[in-house]
Amino acid sequence: MGPGPINADPRVSQVLASPLIGQFDPAMTAFMTQTMELYRTVFRTANDATLVVDGTSRAGIEAAIVSLIAPGDRVLVPVFGRFGGLLAEIASRAGAEVHTIDEEWGRAFDQQRVIDEIDRVHPRLVAIVHGDTATTIAQPLDQIGPACRERGVLLYTDTTASLGGNPFEMDDWCVDAASAGLQKCLAGPSGASPVSLSDRAVAVVRTRSRVEAGIRAPGDRVDGDVIRSNYLDLGQIIDYWGPRRLNHHTEATAMLYAARECARLLVLEGMDHAVARHARHGAAMAVGLQGLGLELFGDQTHRMHNVIGAVIPDDVDGEAVRGMLLSRFGIEIGTSFGPLAGRIWRVGVMGYNAREDTVLTTLAALGAVLARLGTRHRDPAAGVSAAQDWYDAHALAD
Amino acid sequence: MGPGPINADPRVSQVLASPLIGQFDPAMTAFMTQTMELYRTVFRTANDATLVVDGTSRAGIEAAIVSLIAPGDRVLVPVFGRFGGLLAEIASRAGAEVHTIDEEWGRAFDQQRVIDEIDRVHPRLVAIVHGDTATTIAQPLDQIGPACRERGVLLYTDTTASLGGNPFEMDDWCVDAASAGLQKCLAGPSGASPVSLSDRAVAVVRTRSRVEAGIRAPGDRVDGDVIRSNYLDLGQIIDYWGPRRLNHHTEATAMLYAARECARLLVLEGMDHAVARHARHGAAMAVGLQGLGLELFGDQTHRMHNVIGAVIPDDVDGEAVRGMLLSRFGIEIGTSFGPLAGRIWRVGVMGYNAREDTVLTTLAALGAVLARLGTRHRDPAAGVSAAQDWYDAHALAD
Repeated sequence: MGPGPINADPRVSQVLASPLIGQFDPAMTAFMTQTMELYRTVFRTANDATLVVDGTSRAGIEAAIVSLIAPGDRVLVPVFGRFGGLLAEIASRAGAEVHTIDEEWGRAFDQQRVIDEIDRVHPRLVAIVHGDTATTIAQPLDQIGPACRERGVLLYTDTTASLGGNPFEMDDWCVDAASAGLQKCLAGPSGASPVSLSDRAVAVVRTRSRVEAGIRAPGDRVDGDVIRSNYLDLGQIIDYWGPRRLNHHTEATAMLYAARECARLLVLEGMDHAVARHARHGAAMAVGLQGLGLELFGDQTHRMHNVIGAVIPDDVDGEAVRGMLLSRFGIEIGTSFGPLAGRIWRVGVMGYNAREDTVLTTLAALGAVLARLGTRHRDPAAGVSAAQDWYDAHALAD
Repeated sequence: MGPGPINADPRVSQVLASPLIGQFDPAMTAFMTQTMELYRTVFRTANDATLVVDGTSRAGIEAAIVSLIAPGDRVLVPVFGRFGGLLAEIASRAGAEVHTIDEEWGRAFDQQRVIDEIDRVHPRLVAIVHGDTATTIAQPLDQIGPACRERGVLLYTDTTASLGGNPFEMDDWCVDAASAGLQKCLAGPSGASPVSLSDRAVAVVRTRSRVEAGIRAPGDRVDGDVIRSNYLDLGQIIDYWGPRRLNHHTEATAMLYAARECARLLVLEGMDHAVARHARHGAAMAVGLQGLGLELFGDQTHRMHNVIGAVIPDDVDGEAVRGMLLSRFGIEIGTSFGPLAGRIWRVGVMGYNAREDTVLTTLAALGAVLARLGTRHRDPAAGVSAAQDWYDAHALAD
């Protein structure tokens, strides 16, 4: 029940153990094509270039950034938590001229402020986190995206923590590039990163991508700018997933099975239903934490459905609480980074763990641990009571 | 039975489905530490910096190269097959001044020729493939390594195709950096890349690695050269695996389980035994292919134990044979790349498939397909007969 990685849906775990097949076996390439289509539904996009990068969510972020920007390109990164800082770091290593603006941790940017900064800086790319687990906040993008498009600026967003559990409309919001991971609302293991690129973004990548020596065909470009990474060159990866079936990396078959199953389960459930499920159980957890007398962290109007921050009360040692929950109850919750390290707990309600039983069990255990370790009096069952009352008042139709 | 990826050992497949745990859970960090120790045995090294990169074998190659060399550094790449070309490509994208020398595909370099070239070029790094699946050839390194060490030159080698099935002595041969993959002799799925760095290599990486903004501690360097990739910055990855437990990527838990199990099974068997097993079944396959009247490709004195090349005879369509083997018998064999595409078949005998039953079944099926599709007369059972005779003459002691 931490901010991710979380335990996988057992159906996803099972497919990992399926027999492996060769990377150009027709069954394998058919799986790849199915996976592309499933992720179009997950990202809410018609983008052809929707695929999976073989690496953790961070590999997907770096693939998007290093493929889209050339050294010297100006990149604007609005930072509202640790993972905005990571985007700036990755863009800087890729040689970009990075401009950042900062919002207080626990708040989302006013979109107009970002748009004004775009007009001031004139970046080639805006890179922004959609949901920053470090702060539990989701950033609205529905105005930033169209503003980028009008101005001919590319928009990349990191949806690792948010996709599948919060509204995300890649095409409607005019997002040009998005990446994700399996280990949050997608209910799978870390290690594969779904990525989608708009046709505009693909056109930019095509000006920089180069088919590697040894398998180049007549007509493939050989001169000019080149993407600094071979492994994360999205142009080559698109041609590996696409009809050309270019030999690039050796597809990580087991992780592909997992990525496909994660998307299949979400599509089977329906994206709207999955988002509503995360909203429901996240709300119950928030109410339960308040029931235990804890103060929620951050602007709750922009809270991600799937991660709830709670201020660690001053009568307990936050790490002792986390330690007892993990070692005695087998329940993991997180703290945060930087200015929030040791100041807040982060409780995840996501993927396979976005369920009533996991919410109530976690609240019961946390109540008991607070009663044992805290010096202030609390009713250990108050969290459970509040959440159960909330569930009863918000019963689902049959 | 292709040149890899191959089907995994069922014991490896099973661990992929194990429950996931948090990345800083003491159980998880203990798994990571065990995995480091197991891979020290596999690489035959005492290197502290022995770990797993989250990505395919190509990610491990790029991590080593981009972390070790700064833009402008001179790199010598002796190329004797497709994957030497890949090393040159990756080094070039990392900004190196790349010098290549070429050997005919199907032959290994005379080591003195490489040493002479080192003396002429004075590179900072020599990057060379250990076993190139494209040509089936393994490159001797036992003289190149000491020559590099005497001259203060770093030696990196790609052991993706060879490790576990062929002799490899990281420390005795003075190799500074090596990377591998799970999908060949390690009998696992593609998607994790074991990497080991000597202390000398780590010292070089430390001059370039930078802890990313947001989690930097006082005393961490902030100025000077920086590794161009964040995801593949081996300095940060070493600190993630090491006592500092620096937050970097979210460890790919399922693939870590697989990487650990691959090494555990090899260590349990004994490295010498595993190498001998690959030698045994590879030899039987080679004898069997010759029994079918096929000419072996490449210098057999330097052939990898685990991949055998056979020249496609002129009376059959090589792709039709491969297609019938796959679609009707469920057996995959490979062709090759570039000048060898369509000219040779490559048959893999590696990992879980390095067994008598797989060798004999493959030869039986290939004999039958050649009888059906070839226009020249052949005894369909001649491959099996030759291999069975060889096994009978080389019976293992009880």
